Amino acid sequence: MTKRPLDILDLVLNRQPVIVSLKGGRELRGILQGYDVHMNLVLEKATDVENDISKNVGTLIVRGDNVIYISPSVEQQ
Amino acid sequence: MTKRPLDILDLVLNRQPVIVSLKGGRELRGILQGYDVHMNLVLEKATDVENDISKNVGTLIVRGDNVIYISPSVEQQ
Amino acid sequence: MTKRPLDILDLVLNRQPVIVSLKGGRELRGILQGYDVHMNLVLEKATDVENDISKNVGTLIVRGDNVIYISPSVEQQ
Amino acid sequence: MTKRPLDILDLVLNRQPVIVSLKGGRELRGILQGYDVHMNLVLEKATDVENDISKNVGTLIVRGDNVIYISPSVEQQ
Amino acid sequence: MTKRPLDILDLVLNRQPVIVSLKGGRELRGILQGYDVHMNLVLEKATDVENDISKNVGTLIVRGDNVIYISPSVEQQ
Amino acid sequence: MTKRPLDILDLVLNRQPVIVSLKGGRELRGILQGYDVHMNLVLEKATDVENDISKNVGTLIVRGDNVIYISPSVEQQ
Amino acid sequence: MTKRPLDILDLVLNRQPVIVSLKGGRELRGILQGYDVHMNLVLEKATDVENDISKNVGTLIVRGDNVIYISPSVEQQ
Repeated sequence: MTKRPLDILDLVLNRQPVIVSLKGGRELRGILQGYDVHMNLVLEKATDVENDISKNVGTLIVRGDNVIYISPSVEQQ
Repeated sequence: MTKRPLDILDLVLNRQPVIVSLKGGRELRGILQGYDVHMNLVLEKATDVENDISKNVGTLIVRGDNVIYISPSVEQQ
Repeated sequence: MTKRPLDILDLVLNRQPVIVSLKGGRELRGILQGYDVHMNLVLEKATDVENDISKNVGTLIVRGDNVIYISPSVEQQ
Repeated sequence: MTKRPLDILDLVLNRQPVIVSLKGGRELRGILQGYDVHMNLVLEKATDVENDISKNVGTLIVRGDNVIYISPSVEQQ
Repeated sequence: MTKRPLDILDLVLNRQPVIVSLKGGRELRGILQGYDVHMNLVLEKATDVENDISKNVGTLIVRGDNVIYISPSVEQQ
Repeated sequence: MTKRPLDILDLVLNRQPVIVSLKGGRELRGILQGYDVHMNLVLEKATDVENDISKNVGTLIVRGDNVIYISPSVEQQ
Repeated sequence: MTKRPLDILDLVLNRQPVIVSLKGGRELRGILQGYDVHMNLVLEKATDVENDISKNVGTLIVRGDNVIYISPSVEQQ
């Protein structure tokens, strides 16, 4: 079955942490709490990893144009 | 419950300072006083931190396309 | 016969792995499970190859503006 | 009270000089004489500061996509 | 006679190979099998040339925003 | 009185030369003969200054997205 | 008289060669055979000049977002 990219995000809302790979080599992890059509994201209990240094950053509103990919890091059904 | 990214910003308007991470490694802190759909922001009592040097810059109107993420740095209900 | 670029993607949905070349020299491989008009992609059983180092990343939602090209790596009929 | 980013600019039209931080490290100062929805700006009696060298440039029409932030450098009511 | 840029592409569909010059110094060659208004392209029997190293990549769907120019490498009538 | 950025350009059409500062450090000078909403410009009797080397380039059609600012280099009324 | 930027291009269609300055330091020359609102261009008998090395490239379809300026290199009436 074909799935639209943004619909996949619905499956991981409020569940296991997702990995968000950002332009410029930064990586975020957190619980996906919301998103919109621009791939603006709300992450909770987020950590910001840059050059192997991890920082707790709490809640984040991420602007979608920075995103390379989002990895649910779990298997879809 | 799912939350849309920009709605989260409503919860932090005129409250504790937010952290705004900008493209190019710059970081702003300040009270969020307003925003629009482009993530243009109004920050008050803002400081601009670059290479660990912090500068008071008063009120700022930030153009949204510079934003990587906004961190309310407080827990949402 | 002329084919529209996005229609080609229909032919490779849920089949052999595709190669996705990204801006910045990164390369992804995986089963294409979905896409939209922005070339946002859903890849399954994906690997992320950077500087010849390959990493299994499971399911990925890729933001289309990072894509240089998609190679079905199979012959179309 | 919540304020929309562009409305703040109305408060500083034709008053004290504003500071405009541009992508690429350039900074402009001048009296804000006008703006539009793209954050295109009209500055008067402007100076262009780059690498600590300041240059008088008179009137400027600035294309909005170069703007990082605008600082009224005065307190709003 | 004046020709619109995208109409020229119709003349070379499914014929001699075209050269596609990409941002970042990459060059693709292949039979143009399709295109759309964004200059998204379908290339067949494509080769990817980077730093004088040529690689066969079969069919490619190229995202239009990477294109600098397309050279039909044949004379138009 | 408030002035919209593009309206200012009307005041300098076909008069003294304007200075156009471009992304990447290039600077153009010339008589502004026309413009549109994208800040695409027509310059006449233009010179292109790069690294202090000045080159006469006659008439130019400049794509607006390259513009940082336009300086009429004259006082407005 | 005021001229709109794209209208100027009509005056040089199918006449003397134009010079097209591209982002990244590349320069194209050729007979302008067509264009559209995005400044996508058709050039004939084109040469591609990079680092003072000139290469004949025949017909070119240039994607408009690469253009810095177009110089008709002739005087307009």
